[in-house]
Amino acid sequence: MKKIIIGVMGPGKTAKEIDLQNAYQLGKLIAKQDWILLTGGRNIGVMDAASCGAKSVRGLTVGILPDRNLQNVSKFVDIPIVTNMGSARNNINVLSSHVVIACGIGPGTVSEIALALKANKKVIFLTDEKENFNFFEKLSPQLVYFATNPEAAMSIIEMILNNDNYTNLK
Amino acid sequence: MKKIIIGVMGPGKTAKEIDLQNAYQLGKLIAKQDWILLTGGRNIGVMDAASCGAKSVRGLTVGILPDRNLQNVSKFVDIPIVTNMGSARNNINVLSSHVVIACGIGPGTVSEIALALKANKKVIFLTDEKENFNFFEKLSPQLVYFATNPEAAMSIIEMILNNDNYTNLK
Amino acid sequence: MKKIIIGVMGPGKTAKEIDLQNAYQLGKLIAKQDWILLTGGRNIGVMDAASCGAKSVRGLTVGILPDRNLQNVSKFVDIPIVTNMGSARNNINVLSSHVVIACGIGPGTVSEIALALKANKKVIFLTDEKENFNFFEKLSPQLVYFATNPEAAMSIIEMILNNDNYTNLK
Amino acid sequence: MKKIIIGVMGPGKTAKEIDLQNAYQLGKLIAKQDWILLTGGRNIGVMDAASCGAKSVRGLTVGILPDRNLQNVSKFVDIPIVTNMGSARNNINVLSSHVVIACGIGPGTVSEIALALKANKKVIFLTDEKENFNFFEKLSPQLVYFATNPEAAMSIIEMILNNDNYTNLK
Repeated sequence: MKKIIIGVMGPGKTAKEIDLQNAYQLGKLIAKQDWILLTGGRNIGVMDAASCGAKSVRGLTVGILPDRNLQNVSKFVDIPIVTNMGSARNNINVLSSHVVIACGIGPGTVSEIALALKANKKVIFLTDEKENFNFFEKLSPQLVYFATNPEAAMSIIEMILNNDNYTNLK
Repeated sequence: MKKIIIGVMGPGKTAKEIDLQNAYQLGKLIAKQDWILLTGGRNIGVMDAASCGAKSVRGLTVGILPDRNLQNVSKFVDIPIVTNMGSARNNINVLSSHVVIACGIGPGTVSEIALALKANKKVIFLTDEKENFNFFEKLSPQLVYFATNPEAAMSIIEMILNNDNYTNLK
Repeated sequence: MKKIIIGVMGPGKTAKEIDLQNAYQLGKLIAKQDWILLTGGRNIGVMDAASCGAKSVRGLTVGILPDRNLQNVSKFVDIPIVTNMGSARNNINVLSSHVVIACGIGPGTVSEIALALKANKKVIFLTDEKENFNFFEKLSPQLVYFATNPEAAMSIIEMILNNDNYTNLK
Repeated sequence: MKKIIIGVMGPGKTAKEIDLQNAYQLGKLIAKQDWILLTGGRNIGVMDAASCGAKSVRGLTVGILPDRNLQNVSKFVDIPIVTNMGSARNNINVLSSHVVIACGIGPGTVSEIALALKANKKVIFLTDEKENFNFFEKLSPQLVYFATNPEAAMSIIEMILNNDNYTNLK
């Protein structure tokens, strides 16, 4: 059976401190479950923080990179996948993840959430602002979940994986 | 000087009647300006209605298709571009348009709006529900516009093109 | 019925004089048939020459661009499609063309020929060096054609379109 | 320092027995070096054989998949990256690999070799037919290498990695 891949998405340079803290903690918890962490792979914001958290407990991290400039890759990414297709790589991020978690918000993250919902993927909003969640809940009520801290997000992932019976991973 | 390309985005099967009417009218008005209409190219929803409107006055229509199944192409598309990359083609839709107009909302359209903002493209919301506009206005206040009817949207496009001095088209 | 789209592929900076002459002539002949010319869209080599030929008789030209840098777009391209996906756009070039013509050879052109054959598209080699043709003929004998001048290439396109009965364009 | 990623490319259904044997052995040798094996990820041909070889010694395998159909994924792929962009994913295969090895030939493999050369990546031909190698040697003499067995290919990879001083991996 293949390993579970969990995607953590969120802003780059404009990430808030709380989003970075959540991302770090989430990366750590994902790695402790022996799941693979997938991010956008750059050395900034939520991508970098989540990957750092996963590596703090020797997890495995995949980064789906928008361009060929290896100076921009997070040093916490084990496996850099070089797409050279800019933001179109956001679709690969979500298609490759069993569950997607959004830590914070920005245009890139919104595109990832929307592409995930379009592809029928489940998305967990990790935030204390319910407004963004409400916007997407109207779009795809069956696919969105809300969590106020990383531990709650992890419980939701486990519930989703159990309910899906891992069917598309077997 | 290259022709102006205007992208009209919106839901497929789930489009509302008002969105289809707006899209048809918008396609017509865009074509009358001798601008090129660009859509997602399928034979449903806003894509089909906007292309139909443009062809009603003998405009030129481009469709950026998600897959190779030519049964799904709108008969009102003159130039079908076959990407075979699913929703990742949404990024091409917005990068190829000078201005993007959203007629209605859905996960695919939200991804297009967000990808447009990420790429620093201006987006006009043609709708009578201001809620969706408000969500995106918080994300990118400099890049979003609101119109309640196709004529108002056309005025905004002209204003944008004048302000931008067509610089990235020359 | 949709217009026919003919793709002309070939080297950029490294194009030979004969390839440029062939491309210019081919662009002209394609436009005279009222077919749409599709190229990689840049302002160099075979892409630029073919587009120039098509515009010399007021044809319609589409360019599938690898990046967002509009300084690199051929001034003879009417409709620039901005993919921002580098050489991966080569697959869009061939999927969007009813027939592909290769004027000269180089790594990019070889990738386009191979992607065309993989997608079951027919490819005409316009060259006086039969060696390259021979290589691909071994790979996909049913799909490759050889022409030594633009007029011969045009005859082959017409034959292909007739045999295919335009089926995938209707 | 990031792990080395080695891409093994080759035909799917049309692979020859010798190509499958070479791919299996190559996958095994790559994994023994603690390098990551990257393939096109499907459950056929060279992709499957190389991944099987790597897993036989508990290596780590990445598969860059053309579509969302998880029935087609090799069971020897640990990390399936779902691109849903068909053959355009071939560009990601080569951009993500430090060195590319071609086991056998076919349209898809030719596109990968050509995209690798276009991106300035080094390619090793593992085959006993020198003809294909000769074709590409003329295109990009500085970037192509020839090996008649997996052990020879491994020596060339090591030489390339040493000469490049791992520069684009640090």
